[in-house]
Amino acid sequence: MDVQIIMSQTFPPGVSSEAFFACADAIAGAAKDLAALGWTPATSSNFSMRVDDSHAAITISGRDKGRLDRDDIMLIDLDGQAVGTDARPSAETALHTQVYRRWSDMRVVLHTHSRTQSVASRLFAAQGSIRLEGWELQKAITGFHTHESMLQIPVFPNTQHMPELVARVEAWLDAGKPLHAYLIDGHGIYTWGRDMAETRRHLEALEFLLACELDLRRLSA
Amino acid sequence: MDVQIIMSQTFPPGVSSEAFFACADAIAGAAKDLAALGWTPATSSNFSMRVDDSHAAITISGRDKGRLDRDDIMLIDLDGQAVGTDARPSAETALHTQVYRRWSDMRVVLHTHSRTQSVASRLFAAQGSIRLEGWELQKAITGFHTHESMLQIPVFPNTQHMPELVARVEAWLDAGKPLHAYLIDGHGIYTWGRDMAETRRHLEALEFLLACELDLRRLSA
Amino acid sequence: MDVQIIMSQTFPPGVSSEAFFACADAIAGAAKDLAALGWTPATSSNFSMRVDDSHAAITISGRDKGRLDRDDIMLIDLDGQAVGTDARPSAETALHTQVYRRWSDMRVVLHTHSRTQSVASRLFAAQGSIRLEGWELQKAITGFHTHESMLQIPVFPNTQHMPELVARVEAWLDAGKPLHAYLIDGHGIYTWGRDMAETRRHLEALEFLLACELDLRRLSA
Amino acid sequence: MDVQIIMSQTFPPGVSSEAFFACADAIAGAAKDLAALGWTPATSSNFSMRVDDSHAAITISGRDKGRLDRDDIMLIDLDGQAVGTDARPSAETALHTQVYRRWSDMRVVLHTHSRTQSVASRLFAAQGSIRLEGWELQKAITGFHTHESMLQIPVFPNTQHMPELVARVEAWLDAGKPLHAYLIDGHGIYTWGRDMAETRRHLEALEFLLACELDLRRLSA
Repeated sequence: MDVQIIMSQTFPPGVSSEAFFACADAIAGAAKDLAALGWTPATSSNFSMRVDDSHAAITISGRDKGRLDRDDIMLIDLDGQAVGTDARPSAETALHTQVYRRWSDMRVVLHTHSRTQSVASRLFAAQGSIRLEGWELQKAITGFHTHESMLQIPVFPNTQHMPELVARVEAWLDAGKPLHAYLIDGHGIYTWGRDMAETRRHLEALEFLLACELDLRRLSA
Repeated sequence: MDVQIIMSQTFPPGVSSEAFFACADAIAGAAKDLAALGWTPATSSNFSMRVDDSHAAITISGRDKGRLDRDDIMLIDLDGQAVGTDARPSAETALHTQVYRRWSDMRVVLHTHSRTQSVASRLFAAQGSIRLEGWELQKAITGFHTHESMLQIPVFPNTQHMPELVARVEAWLDAGKPLHAYLIDGHGIYTWGRDMAETRRHLEALEFLLACELDLRRLSA
Repeated sequence: MDVQIIMSQTFPPGVSSEAFFACADAIAGAAKDLAALGWTPATSSNFSMRVDDSHAAITISGRDKGRLDRDDIMLIDLDGQAVGTDARPSAETALHTQVYRRWSDMRVVLHTHSRTQSVASRLFAAQGSIRLEGWELQKAITGFHTHESMLQIPVFPNTQHMPELVARVEAWLDAGKPLHAYLIDGHGIYTWGRDMAETRRHLEALEFLLACELDLRRLSA
Repeated sequence: MDVQIIMSQTFPPGVSSEAFFACADAIAGAAKDLAALGWTPATSSNFSMRVDDSHAAITISGRDKGRLDRDDIMLIDLDGQAVGTDARPSAETALHTQVYRRWSDMRVVLHTHSRTQSVASRLFAAQGSIRLEGWELQKAITGFHTHESMLQIPVFPNTQHMPELVARVEAWLDAGKPLHAYLIDGHGIYTWGRDMAETRRHLEALEFLLACELDLRRLSA
């Protein structure tokens, strides 16, 4: 396996293979846990981690997220181009690099596709966002210190044309609205953080909060 | 165990025992995973894999799908007759061989019986099919490239008389309608593919999409 | 552990310790699996297995069903009296021995307490029974050969006074109605069979069917 | 690891390090099981155990509850002050020490944050409590002997100011009402017991009963 990786992924001068492999291992570990939760059905979802100022490691398209090896993960630059490999990055790579280009302190992007995320996105697509209020677990999102805050998650229309989605994210941010995560209609969630632990905490909290919100809606009918 | 297999399953000239055992192992591996998900309750469900142009390996009726050994799987011809064994194939064998006879490139048929599949079949039986639209995961079905497509899953009435079901599948296909999977009312799902990975991806995506559709229906009421 | 068992459980002449330990091991194995499914919350549930014509092995009251050892299981006679031990059998022992006394071919009784079982019992208590129709999995109950059959599960009122429950079961049977399992209101299910595999198949099928029935009710509202 | 503990946690004269480590190990074991059930999302929840008449062991704030080591647990006195360590106890420490100060026989406090607990708290916040009646599993709460009893769980308003919550608990008790557990709105549950087994039985029973109550509400609508 390792031989195959060394052959298929080469590193240009100045890019640390050690840093890449550390990212690849962290991604594979997280992916295994998230797959076991059922949040990456049918080879969906993709994960990335910043390697340095101008590169990231990202999952190759179409692999089973419960069984990722180092050779299921590739190097890209922050324009989303493959570096040192013929592998094809995920179609949604542009949504990952957007985060790394926009915020220099963000180091991890996780995109999953749980049933709760998919259903919530469909249900709230028409109103354009979900507003979470009154839940203690909002405090799991960095910068939130009380359940009395309001956490707004936009729901963007789905498209197979990534530049449209990139533009919607930019427009949201350019309007000065806080953004910790977003849903895509009928699809899944994107969230990010400064390291893997923070990003997984964000993802776990968001899944929990969306599930609670759906339960409450069912029960309050 | 292996001794017992060799004694109970013999191979006619031209049928490769290696090919059979490779299929049996692939079936047992998939069955174990699907049983762990709870999709094969109470010894229900059955699985098959094409061995060659005129034979398939299929699960013997009534076994616990979480604990299949090679001797829980038997050889049949594409008329559904046992070959080289006294074991009784599943009553639903005709639904498997129909797929292999109709499409020469299909190599795996998986029939499971999850709660979501059973409930969805009951709920949509009266209208005869479920139409899935707007879900990104439709792209997990081979040939689908956008969430803007429509994936239609017919729901056929249940019967203990297999030729009736075979005829309904034929009628659907003869009408020129695409068919990637079908539900049987109060029962479970059948889906297929060119190899085990594709077929499992189809099954996992269909279970996910049916579950999302039921959730959305509950929440939109 | 084994030393402790030998000391706390003795065997009168004619009762095979080997038969008892075989039953105890089968009970512990099943209990571990059922606990992992969440069907035995908070030390609830109890399990028994016939040792011979006049004795059974049964779980001692109040133990964690996920971690049963041989010394969590005791010998009783078919009047429900402890034999060769000072341990106290479950308060519900009379419901187990009733099965063994009534049907000489029944060898296993499983009583679990899943959320689905508890909720279904509350929901159908007023009408006195649940009627299951149109589900393929009804065929998992011994004697059922088609989804066109009807499987009726009575729901008896809960009581802390076991003779009342015993009498209700007798009255049901004396009225000539078939009985494969029963629910107790706000409580759980009892089912039985000729061996552990059959009884677990019954229990698994009943849990599945009750869950489907509840889902269908939620979705058809 | 152990070296690091010994360095970061010291013990004043009269406090047994053996007793502390036994508590820490019991907490870590329980936390691992509860995290696997999904009841401690995103580093939420906290757990404590009495070490002696005037000290308790409690989880340090913000750690992943599925992977607790001895050095994720610290010593406090019953005023909630750190003892022999610079670590910061959970913000909710006052709710733990309140139990130990009020009842000398209580030795364990578990606070979890499951989806069921969070949703139930929101749903019943307006009426101030949840009344559980008619469930056999109420008997899992120490002192309850029949399903005909009534188990009342108060739901207190959430606040980031702990003294308010402490005062609400005191007021409830001073009014002479029984208290076995309480919910905090949008948050989770607190329960306690004389040892870890009893406290886990309480927690498991309460989660089950709340989930049943929500199911019943959904189905009875």
